[in-house]
Amino acid sequence: MKINFELLDEAISISHMTTLVIEDVKVFSNIVEMLYQYDDESKLKIFDKKLILNSEIEVVTDILGYNVNTPALLKTVYSNLEKQLIEKLEIRSIFENLILDLEDLIKEEFIDYDLDLEIGEVTIQQIFKVFGVRVEVDNRTIFEKITEIIKVFKYQIKKKLLIFINVCSYLDSVEIVQLREYISLYHLNVLFLEPKKIYGINQYILDKDYYLYRRNAII
Amino acid sequence: MKINFELLDEAISISHMTTLVIEDVKVFSNIVEMLYQYDDESKLKIFDKKLILNSEIEVVTDILGYNVNTPALLKTVYSNLEKQLIEKLEIRSIFENLILDLEDLIKEEFIDYDLDLEIGEVTIQQIFKVFGVRVEVDNRTIFEKITEIIKVFKYQIKKKLLIFINVCSYLDSVEIVQLREYISLYHLNVLFLEPKKIYGINQYILDKDYYLYRRNAII
Amino acid sequence: MKINFELLDEAISISHMTTLVIEDVKVFSNIVEMLYQYDDESKLKIFDKKLILNSEIEVVTDILGYNVNTPALLKTVYSNLEKQLIEKLEIRSIFENLILDLEDLIKEEFIDYDLDLEIGEVTIQQIFKVFGVRVEVDNRTIFEKITEIIKVFKYQIKKKLLIFINVCSYLDSVEIVQLREYISLYHLNVLFLEPKKIYGINQYILDKDYYLYRRNAII
Amino acid sequence: MKINFELLDEAISISHMTTLVIEDVKVFSNIVEMLYQYDDESKLKIFDKKLILNSEIEVVTDILGYNVNTPALLKTVYSNLEKQLIEKLEIRSIFENLILDLEDLIKEEFIDYDLDLEIGEVTIQQIFKVFGVRVEVDNRTIFEKITEIIKVFKYQIKKKLLIFINVCSYLDSVEIVQLREYISLYHLNVLFLEPKKIYGINQYILDKDYYLYRRNAII
Repeated sequence: MKINFELLDEAISISHMTTLVIEDVKVFSNIVEMLYQYDDESKLKIFDKKLILNSEIEVVTDILGYNVNTPALLKTVYSNLEKQLIEKLEIRSIFENLILDLEDLIKEEFIDYDLDLEIGEVTIQQIFKVFGVRVEVDNRTIFEKITEIIKVFKYQIKKKLLIFINVCSYLDSVEIVQLREYISLYHLNVLFLEPKKIYGINQYILDKDYYLYRRNAII
Repeated sequence: MKINFELLDEAISISHMTTLVIEDVKVFSNIVEMLYQYDDESKLKIFDKKLILNSEIEVVTDILGYNVNTPALLKTVYSNLEKQLIEKLEIRSIFENLILDLEDLIKEEFIDYDLDLEIGEVTIQQIFKVFGVRVEVDNRTIFEKITEIIKVFKYQIKKKLLIFINVCSYLDSVEIVQLREYISLYHLNVLFLEPKKIYGINQYILDKDYYLYRRNAII
Repeated sequence: MKINFELLDEAISISHMTTLVIEDVKVFSNIVEMLYQYDDESKLKIFDKKLILNSEIEVVTDILGYNVNTPALLKTVYSNLEKQLIEKLEIRSIFENLILDLEDLIKEEFIDYDLDLEIGEVTIQQIFKVFGVRVEVDNRTIFEKITEIIKVFKYQIKKKLLIFINVCSYLDSVEIVQLREYISLYHLNVLFLEPKKIYGINQYILDKDYYLYRRNAII
Repeated sequence: MKINFELLDEAISISHMTTLVIEDVKVFSNIVEMLYQYDDESKLKIFDKKLILNSEIEVVTDILGYNVNTPALLKTVYSNLEKQLIEKLEIRSIFENLILDLEDLIKEEFIDYDLDLEIGEVTIQQIFKVFGVRVEVDNRTIFEKITEIIKVFKYQIKKKLLIFINVCSYLDSVEIVQLREYISLYHLNVLFLEPKKIYGINQYILDKDYYLYRRNAII
């Protein structure tokens, strides 16, 4: 995957974790604005074999406000968990028996009640939902939250590129390296767009004279 | 409880099942319209020690379309069922253990899943809801539906008078007598407003000359 | 269009206003229940060249509770009114100028306001909606309401048969004749299902011995 | 207003635009997390004469995703605009006449329509709404968006402190100075929390040795 915009001589390749530092404030702001409003008429282009659509990129400007538990993700999680559960025949049988026992116990109470009551069907996924199953979100640090956003990104199958904007201020070198390894391991494409040089990782730097160079981390 | 309107010399008492037959079509229609739009400015008055409010009467013109499972009723049912269940200590303990077992079984599945998941709390009433507990409604005859509406009326604690309009055409004498007994047994106030004389029960008749008389059933 | 059920020797034709009186209470109730739950597996059949679907009939048991102003009807009304309005070029031009004047007047107010405000586009149909345009419903008698239901039925283009159940108790002979004329005029198919003989119109009567005969009004 | 947390010897005063730079990544992240989850049990304290509540601060981490047009703000805007408009008697009269003209023109169309239609009342605020009046949001730069957030903050009367996190990377010196003047002019309290020193304005700096000092801009 590649990204290109007017000030670059040639497109920058994005593969696994790619970091682009833009040192001029005006240019940095402008690129962020273009990414936020990215569409097929943008002057900034993201492309693979063909142009990447707005719906195929995920731009994250707000770590703490980012909701990982979207209805779409929960639907995927419930569906996966159900498959996982029903494949284990013994577990599945225990689960179904618990549901039947609950159902019988509730029906038993109907006898003592004045109105004629009835009970419906319940699905495994409805049980997950009523128990409030979701991606863990409490008490997390910004680093953990970023990790979670990357993990959840894998489940957004229509998305091809994850872009983090101005997040390295929250991360120390050890954490950044951990993220890099995590991103490589899962074969994701993640672009970090930053206003200042980052210590300890490879990065592209567009300096104040609009000169682009590559700086490699010294290992 | 009493009802009065312009053509009556004195108010009619409503106690248990009370039937009022209005033989003149125009008057019948007009009284139905007034009941349907009943408020404190209506010429038709319903009163006890004081005037009955619109929110205190339930006018049923549509048996088959009547929804007994309103959110308000279900809330009452779930709350009653919960009280009933938690009072039986042994049953309660079995119920809570089933919930804990389900919870443990679901958590067990989290281990094999790639995202960090968490589980919330579930209440007894949420369990009733997810199992679709409700007043039985399927495959009912009009008679059964009327019986259910009367039963459910007891649970609408803010309501003081139930009024059925033009429903006796759907009921034979045996069924009407059964409803009467049921209404007495539960000490409800139910007014039946009808366009034609009914066979076999006591009733007030306002005839075509606007003359009101009482006709008692011969037993 | 025809209707048939077990007790009939042959199907009854429904054309314009057709009235069927069923004198036996049990049979009447039972036919009403079947109409209310009508589907392609019902023992009661309604057919034209082919079987009529549930979605093609409109069964009205509740006159006063019947909502004529459904979102679907309002959509049709707004769309028709818009067409009607824009065809009259002069009227259209006046309308559009009024909208532009309102817009200018609102924008003028923006100048004195502290925040930078903007104004969007408004469509003709949105104007109808915000003005609360709808089918007249206030202060109506049952007869007027029935007339309105019949009128609105013409706009439910997917519906082929309108069925009124047990409504003649609310109507005098003059009103019934007016409805009949109205229904003929608009070439609608409307079935009235009644528990008692009606004075002054042609009708089919299924008597207590399950014998069907046709009774014509004496003119 | 003041802010205090464990690493500070004494609370920092916040008055108009106050900038706090925290150079240690871990501390910066941690303070951001505490602000985001701020409540009366937080170790980080914001206080005036008494403790400031969570509902009294507005923490902005996401400039581009920030929705200024909340239902609450629009309600305020519509209400203000209405007051402004009706105070100008002549304008008000023109406005009301335009509404009446529209109403008459619509009613005129009812005559040619087959159903009996009616029209309701419309309020001035409903007119603002249907015309889509709102705070201008299109095509803005990050700087304009920040300006708008500050302006709108004045209208959130329950809020006492606005906090921007990590936004100076998007702003050049001229823009920062403009914001400072704007904030002073409107007597707002705004805290900028930043990971790096800012050029050209007064700021508190908590350096990597947790030593706090004040650095004044050279004018």
